[in-house]
Amino acid sequence: MQRLRLTLAYTGKRFQGWQIQERVPGAGTGTNPRTVQGVVEEAFAKILGGPEFAPRVHGAGRTDSGVHAVGQVAHVDVPERARPMDWQLALNGVLPRDVSVVDVEVADSNFHARFDAQRKIYTYTLWHSRRFVLPHRRGFVWMVDSLDTDAMRKAASLFIGEHDFAAFTNAGTVTKTTVREVLAIEPVACAPAEHIPGAPQWPEEIWRFEAQGFLKQMVRNLMGCLVAVGRGKLGMTDVKCILNGKDRTQAPMTAPAQGLTLLKIFYPGD
Amino acid sequence: MQRLRLTLAYTGKRFQGWQIQERVPGAGTGTNPRTVQGVVEEAFAKILGGPEFAPRVHGAGRTDSGVHAVGQVAHVDVPERARPMDWQLALNGVLPRDVSVVDVEVADSNFHARFDAQRKIYTYTLWHSRRFVLPHRRGFVWMVDSLDTDAMRKAASLFIGEHDFAAFTNAGTVTKTTVREVLAIEPVACAPAEHIPGAPQWPEEIWRFEAQGFLKQMVRNLMGCLVAVGRGKLGMTDVKCILNGKDRTQAPMTAPAQGLTLLKIFYPGD
Repeated sequence: MQRLRLTLAYTGKRFQGWQIQERVPGAGTGTNPRTVQGVVEEAFAKILGGPEFAPRVHGAGRTDSGVHAVGQVAHVDVPERARPMDWQLALNGVLPRDVSVVDVEVADSNFHARFDAQRKIYTYTLWHSRRFVLPHRRGFVWMVDSLDTDAMRKAASLFIGEHDFAAFTNAGTVTKTTVREVLAIEPVACAPAEHIPGAPQWPEEIWRFEAQGFLKQMVRNLMGCLVAVGRGKLGMTDVKCILNGKDRTQAPMTAPAQGLTLLKIFYPGD
Repeated sequence: MQRLRLTLAYTGKRFQGWQIQERVPGAGTGTNPRTVQGVVEEAFAKILGGPEFAPRVHGAGRTDSGVHAVGQVAHVDVPERARPMDWQLALNGVLPRDVSVVDVEVADSNFHARFDAQRKIYTYTLWHSRRFVLPHRRGFVWMVDSLDTDAMRKAASLFIGEHDFAAFTNAGTVTKTTVREVLAIEPVACAPAEHIPGAPQWPEEIWRFEAQGFLKQMVRNLMGCLVAVGRGKLGMTDVKCILNGKDRTQAPMTAPAQGLTLLKIFYPGD
């Protein structure tokens, strides 16, 4: 067998997240939820000759339903062939339009997409208007009113470094520890058209989240908290209390999935 | 009556272009082609009380089937009301998801979206890979192999200034003159993610076309010619010959509609 490292991009709208959700036996004949993992495994099965050849595709992280990715990483073991296969072209030839293979590399046989990941970057995109949104950005942004970005930056600084983020993950999630080290949370000026002379300025603002790892829904919960700060509903003291309280039920709302994109995962040697 | 100046954004995929195509009388009961102008006029009709109140919406330019816009301009006359109407919110409330009203202003009663336009900017987006495309950019780019951008820049310089662009418009188009003044044709570095620290570089390249006005399909024909240059199929002499020959049938292929976006139209006083 040969281990491949895949870099995947997908739009989240029509997926129930990354992870295959096994059908409960005896639960009826409803179709399985459509997942990225499922679709990619099906693509391998098609190329390898049928459903019985479908390999398990192990993702670095389980993106939630509706979340987008341009840099998801996964590993998979495939049979070695006498004639090398161009896996990227083969997979992109059979994958649906909302998933693409950005890169394929042959990896060490012990490479593990999840356990070897060192750092991850997510982006969250705010659209500072409720009056309109560009049609091609609809479904990729969270429409909010104009916010106090300075206050949001200051509040974001409270999250940098190693903290127990229990208040910012889903209640009831089982995990060894809720301590994570956050490396950066910052707005990055990046309306796509802004470097084109004469182009209009859109009310789009991209926030960049970088950490060694994130808890389930952590980025969306942090973004929800920062937007509450930007709206003047929470002050610095409130945010400190929420972080120190370690109680999810005290934290503000979760930002919607559609604004979130998994941008990049770093591995040793990258 | 009150004249409004609308700024419109739309994704072109599901439209047969801007302009309403009147059904030929007696040609059967097929549905009319879906056009941006038709959809916007329907939105006004809904707000004003029924199809019989639909006003004519005059666009600055007739974008082709499949072409996108973020800065189309149109004018329309609507009845004045005792209580001012928030036309942007009202229209965005009834328009389909692939059209948005970016701005509405009350204009002078003699403002004309088409005749008063002074300059226009279009962008054309190339994707320099045939191996993959990001799913959220699919339908907004032309997938081409890597090209000789230097040669393309040099060839583009031949088009700057006032020229007869008969070779770069549709054969058979009736127009007073095929002379146009081109102000700029240039690649603008603008992969959306490139200003985010740690973000991957995508093989995306946006070309910017600015002119006082363009002939029908002129941007797509110029882009098709430049890509032929970038592929080494045409040299500088060939491009000069094509331009001077003024014969559309001698020019290379038309670039696909999906890569083209009407970015901005300038009016006196802007």
